[in-house]
Amino acid sequence: MSYITQIRKQSPLIYNIMNEVGSNFIANGLIAVGASPSISNMPEEAKEMAHAADAVVLNLGTLSSDREEAMKIAGRAANKAGVPVLIDPIAVGATKFRTKVIHELLSDVKCAVICANAGEIAVLGNALDKTTSPDSALEENDPKIAEKVAKKYETIVIATGKTDVITDGRRTTLCKNGHPMLQKITASGCLLTSVVGAFISVSGENIYEASIEATSGHGIAAEEAITKATGPGSFISSFLDQLYLLDQDKIETHQQLDS
Amino acid sequence: MSYITQIRKQSPLIYNIMNEVGSNFIANGLIAVGASPSISNMPEEAKEMAHAADAVVLNLGTLSSDREEAMKIAGRAANKAGVPVLIDPIAVGATKFRTKVIHELLSDVKCAVICANAGEIAVLGNALDKTTSPDSALEENDPKIAEKVAKKYETIVIATGKTDVITDGRRTTLCKNGHPMLQKITASGCLLTSVVGAFISVSGENIYEASIEATSGHGIAAEEAITKATGPGSFISSFLDQLYLLDQDKIETHQQLDS
Amino acid sequence: MSYITQIRKQSPLIYNIMNEVGSNFIANGLIAVGASPSISNMPEEAKEMAHAADAVVLNLGTLSSDREEAMKIAGRAANKAGVPVLIDPIAVGATKFRTKVIHELLSDVKCAVICANAGEIAVLGNALDKTTSPDSALEENDPKIAEKVAKKYETIVIATGKTDVITDGRRTTLCKNGHPMLQKITASGCLLTSVVGAFISVSGENIYEASIEATSGHGIAAEEAITKATGPGSFISSFLDQLYLLDQDKIETHQQLDS
Repeated sequence: MSYITQIRKQSPLIYNIMNEVGSNFIANGLIAVGASPSISNMPEEAKEMAHAADAVVLNLGTLSSDREEAMKIAGRAANKAGVPVLIDPIAVGATKFRTKVIHELLSDVKCAVICANAGEIAVLGNALDKTTSPDSALEENDPKIAEKVAKKYETIVIATGKTDVITDGRRTTLCKNGHPMLQKITASGCLLTSVVGAFISVSGENIYEASIEATSGHGIAAEEAITKATGPGSFISSFLDQLYLLDQDKIETHQQLDS
Repeated sequence: MSYITQIRKQSPLIYNIMNEVGSNFIANGLIAVGASPSISNMPEEAKEMAHAADAVVLNLGTLSSDREEAMKIAGRAANKAGVPVLIDPIAVGATKFRTKVIHELLSDVKCAVICANAGEIAVLGNALDKTTSPDSALEENDPKIAEKVAKKYETIVIATGKTDVITDGRRTTLCKNGHPMLQKITASGCLLTSVVGAFISVSGENIYEASIEATSGHGIAAEEAITKATGPGSFISSFLDQLYLLDQDKIETHQQLDS
Repeated sequence: MSYITQIRKQSPLIYNIMNEVGSNFIANGLIAVGASPSISNMPEEAKEMAHAADAVVLNLGTLSSDREEAMKIAGRAANKAGVPVLIDPIAVGATKFRTKVIHELLSDVKCAVICANAGEIAVLGNALDKTTSPDSALEENDPKIAEKVAKKYETIVIATGKTDVITDGRRTTLCKNGHPMLQKITASGCLLTSVVGAFISVSGENIYEASIEATSGHGIAAEEAITKATGPGSFISSFLDQLYLLDQDKIETHQQLDS
């Protein structure tokens, strides 16, 4: 059974420590693909939430002391319990504090997936000093940098850009699905990370394959959405509609992968 | 004069201690029905905010230390000042901390209305151990459980589900308005609680009647909205439009109640 | 080159300390006009964020201890670095705490622009005791009050209402663009302040002119949006679309100014 079908059947619980900007959008997006979202940023709840979850998403936007502590607790608890952890290192390099927290998380917590835009991945790979806005993007997306980061952290890296790069350090897939309008709305990358969480939560050992499928599915929904949109506002509505209408048939028909 | 007409005339101030996921949506929804929303999660402001308000909504989503303290202060201040309090015990049972805070609130603060999905009401009625995601729902919605909770807390209970149950422990009304798409968007239950707040704020002693009217009005707006929607994204836009267009005539024409 | 053209070319970084209700909407609105938004409410990041930014927006909604501290640090750092600061004194007068923080900010930080609804400006000008909901509006919008506030704080004041007033205390412009539906959605005023931030960030010394242009551009986008909307929900989508489609030609054609 395909991942998207499996998600709609099992309704996996995706626990997100999430920024304030994207929380509504990612909750709606997770429901749209068939998952069950929970969002809590409180250290007191992090351990139990992580244990109950099918995947844990650590999103670094609108960082706060509570979120920092909750992410560390949730990450470690998920590692112990065998629940996969995803990290979205938003704006790494933008401030010393943020960069420090991200590096601490990456060294304390074993992540199944690092999902970020190409600029943020470049910072993690020491190829770029800093990123400024989470909504700014790096034009070029060098697979070599993503591969280096994947090897360093023994994880899967999804680096988004004009072409998305998915790699585990040995295997690399390029995904050409998507639409530039995704850069014109906030939190589309946050949503991708959470959607990847839903896909890998039902994938068993096939995390690499599920990451590719999630990335192309997210991109295909955007391609469908743009045909009904006249700008970013109507695109947001339409994108959620299309995530809801996404199925295995659409993914197979429209997937554009290079490996 | 009907409740919805009264709201549009008086523009009651509904003070919400609100989660991060639903805050934008519930603010827009409250304005759409004619109320004036305020949202503050800060203990330092809770007393004055509660005194100025026509109803106080305690929403337990994305709990934080500040929200916990603010809810306790606001709840007690509202009780003293005779301002009605509503509580939405989101994900009660999901973590020990959350469950403790909810039980403390329910014992410290006299609530006019408890509004939650059937699963959360079942946890309060000890018929279910825990809920996980606020967006997961219990299929069956047993009026007996809601009545038990209403009696226990001497309050009105609104338990949402395929059929919504509204009860004060003696009288029970079933409301069949609504649409399954409400389960496919986040914070639709949060919005219902806040909308009930607007309705009871203009209802004087008729809190039970106003709760029924609010629940069916919310459901009718969803029924109208779905005819213009192709998925959850367009449904969200359309639902806000229909709450804005809701009037007494529509409520009387489309209300589906059983008692 | 016009301000909007300049923004789309330079993609200025607008750093917002922002409330939870409007954060998604203002991020999307800033991207729509061509700016690059960053949102962080954390004191530990405030100094570096302010130094990197082209404008700093202090928004007082959903105040918290972190936000209070971050705003003071960011405001002072921006002043030292010559980065323009804008303040949106949401619900000033509603609580003692909030009012105190706003007055502290206004005395500690040199603001280039104060942008608020007419009621909030009246509170700052001691013509009104308090405001309650940020979404309630004062009908009359007296230019004399705005001028008094502008002189007192040696700043530009934008007071929104049926007619918007833009003044530096000596020069005053009335802007009649906009649509009443802007009052029916939350955070439209927050977005205006952030959009003004984008305009003044590319204006050099011409802050007054850029403030007028931003206010009318925001209003013109609303006028275009309403023709495609059937209520506040579809208006939100359409408004973001129209901000994205806004250009100098539309501004020049539709601008309605009196001075």
